[in-house]
Amino acid sequence: MTTLAVVGLGLIGTSIALAARKAGLVNRVVGRDSRAENLTTAMQMNAVDASWETDFTPDLICIAVPTRSIVACVSESLEQCGSTAPIFDVGSVKKPILDQLQNVPKNFVPCHPIAGSEQRGPFAANASLFSGRTCIVTPVQDTRESSLKQVISFWRGLAMEVLETTPQQHDEILSMTSHVPHLLSMAFVLTVNELKLDLNQYQGSGYRDFTRIAHANPSLWSDIFRDNATHIIPHLEEFQERVSELKDLILAHPDALGSRLNDISNHEANE
Amino acid sequence: MTTLAVVGLGLIGTSIALAARKAGLVNRVVGRDSRAENLTTAMQMNAVDASWETDFTPDLICIAVPTRSIVACVSESLEQCGSTAPIFDVGSVKKPILDQLQNVPKNFVPCHPIAGSEQRGPFAANASLFSGRTCIVTPVQDTRESSLKQVISFWRGLAMEVLETTPQQHDEILSMTSHVPHLLSMAFVLTVNELKLDLNQYQGSGYRDFTRIAHANPSLWSDIFRDNATHIIPHLEEFQERVSELKDLILAHPDALGSRLNDISNHEANE
Repeated sequence: MTTLAVVGLGLIGTSIALAARKAGLVNRVVGRDSRAENLTTAMQMNAVDASWETDFTPDLICIAVPTRSIVACVSESLEQCGSTAPIFDVGSVKKPILDQLQNVPKNFVPCHPIAGSEQRGPFAANASLFSGRTCIVTPVQDTRESSLKQVISFWRGLAMEVLETTPQQHDEILSMTSHVPHLLSMAFVLTVNELKLDLNQYQGSGYRDFTRIAHANPSLWSDIFRDNATHIIPHLEEFQERVSELKDLILAHPDALGSRLNDISNHEANE
Repeated sequence: MTTLAVVGLGLIGTSIALAARKAGLVNRVVGRDSRAENLTTAMQMNAVDASWETDFTPDLICIAVPTRSIVACVSESLEQCGSTAPIFDVGSVKKPILDQLQNVPKNFVPCHPIAGSEQRGPFAANASLFSGRTCIVTPVQDTRESSLKQVISFWRGLAMEVLETTPQQHDEILSMTSHVPHLLSMAFVLTVNELKLDLNQYQGSGYRDFTRIAHANPSLWSDIFRDNATHIIPHLEEFQERVSELKDLILAHPDALGSRLNDISNHEANE
């Protein structure tokens, strides 16, 4: 009998429980959440069978909590279960978590499934959230080979493509594919709100797509922005330079603007 | 027999021809494009029946060319057909076009159907592009009431909701719902390209949605940015201030960041 323990029953944790069960990867799911109502909901949704009590030892432990709480939850799981069952997290930053762990436990496998939603909480969970998506796995020197293999095989069992990178490379790449776009979308919606324009009837699909990610969980994302500031800040500054460049072209060299914007498609044609 | 003339057989013009024919609003569509191959394609797609020859007088004239060419095409249509058949454009800016026309012809109805695609050309045309979307109509004092009614009824016949505003209000609102998001998405993709990071395998749906509009037609959009600079530039500057504010919070007051980001959902809850 394979038992999965899920710590943190929000959108991602509850979706992992549902997906693992649907794929037949686990026979039993136990769960824990700092909010009692999340456990109740996850149980009502049949994502989780029972509360993860302290005397119970699962075969695989998933830490699906905001980045700031990952280290504490990993330590707690280690104290409770020792170093046999693999423990993996799903945090959007990797190096700051590993740095805080100092001696990285050999059964800890840092993971980041690239899947999510601007919705929140167990009610928004979805058994198909991970199917066809990519999961990035960033093992370190101390990571035990057998734990890594078990966790990779778990993600593949959810129909994910698994990529291995270093924690640093993960954090640099994700700052551009995810963190900076979220921050810019949020800054844009804050700008719209302050202008007090009623835009409701005038929104096309471009506006909706551009602002969708602004509605992600604020506390979760403020943690991500803090934790990956090393990569986010310089990339934000590069972006601000590009905005200023386009602004200057509009005002002072409008005839050169079209050719500069053409670099977007030329770059792709050269790839 | 109702004949529609379409000047400019790109994505929008060809889609209007297809949609009007599908809705049974017109019996015949004639067309014209500065690129001969666009007319050939539109005819092969059965969007257009024939080339719009100079001796032919249609019942309704649609000008679906980039904003910089609208005034010339309106004047040409007027010379050819006089002031009986209503003429409408579909440009993304309104006041600069009206300003250039000086004496606005009484049969000219300035329009902006909020529908589009990052794809280009007649091949990408789609008879359902407008259905369920909003069309903004910005008549001026000289606009003939009967021309306005005919054009509004044409858009409603394509299953669009029609909103009337002033040209100025249109340009201010659209700068935030469309123009600034396009410019930011383009500036972001230029930033990514210059970092020379290979992000292909790491893109989630957030990245794809955020960058989709960066792939819109560069020459068309450089015209829009120039023409609506009056509204775009101050809004861009407001946005840059918000980005700098969030950057400062990340670096200097990270504990206040979550509460600032909470303003996004609080604002919506208060709406």
